Amino acid sequence: MKLSQIEHLGIATPSLEEAIPYYENVLGLKCFAIEEVADQKVKTAFFQIGEVKLELLEPTSPESAIAKFIEKNGGRGGIHHIAFKTDDVAAALADASEKGIQLIDKAPRKGAEGLNIAFLHPKSTMSVLTEICENPNEN
Amino acid sequence: MKLSQIEHLGIATPSLEEAIPYYENVLGLKCFAIEEVADQKVKTAFFQIGEVKLELLEPTSPESAIAKFIEKNGGRGGIHHIAFKTDDVAAALADASEKGIQLIDKAPRKGAEGLNIAFLHPKSTMSVLTEICENPNEN
Repeated sequence: MKLSQIEHLGIATPSLEEAIPYYENVLGLKCFAIEEVADQKVKTAFFQIGEVKLELLEPTSPESAIAKFIEKNGGRGGIHHIAFKTDDVAAALADASEKGIQLIDKAPRKGAEGLNIAFLHPKSTMSVLTEICENPNEN
Repeated sequence: MKLSQIEHLGIATPSLEEAIPYYENVLGLKCFAIEEVADQKVKTAFFQIGEVKLELLEPTSPESAIAKFIEKNGGRGGIHHIAFKTDDVAAALADASEKGIQLIDKAPRKGAEGLNIAFLHPKSTMSVLTEICENPNEN
């Protein structure tokens, strides 16, 4: 597949209220958006650093995948996934599938910020949960 | 502190021999350097994606921090740390310390690729192991 850059890093956190001041006051970054993604049961906060965004993810329900990640991690947050940018998610999925990669999403779906996204299964990606995304407004 | 970009992501892996073909053949990236960092007991492989490097880390000894990370993670690899770029690591450490952040390295030390690096303690960084680094050849 053809990836151009890291689009964002997904970072799980039990509390945006605690995490945002750390990213702003210690790392000197600026939170530019807070968005709730209802179907993933998370509230997200975005920061830009160079060409990459940091997407903080707080679960809004115990059924959220992020809640389960935090629970497995002893109640702590941590880096949850890496999202690569491409200009054609469907083509990237077809290419990955052909190479024997297990897909979580067999077709692109809508994610935060209006991106078309799909996840590859960490069993096939050296245990790194991997998202592929495209910005439909750029194509 | 003043951070300009993500310099690299550190990704632990039990086997570079298995991981490198995945990054090259599936993600389409190119391994441009393999380096052993003796004092951290790791062998590293580097890939570039946009402005960010991916640094795969394979432990060369069971005493390596990376070996312990993999053991804790059920024998699997995963995203180990995030490294931010600054033009003055010592100033960033002084700033972080003043704000109550716990430091792993109280002064910059040499890391892979000749960078001056220092780690902040995940207890103070929302459970994300965080490295700050500068390229002395750019200052």
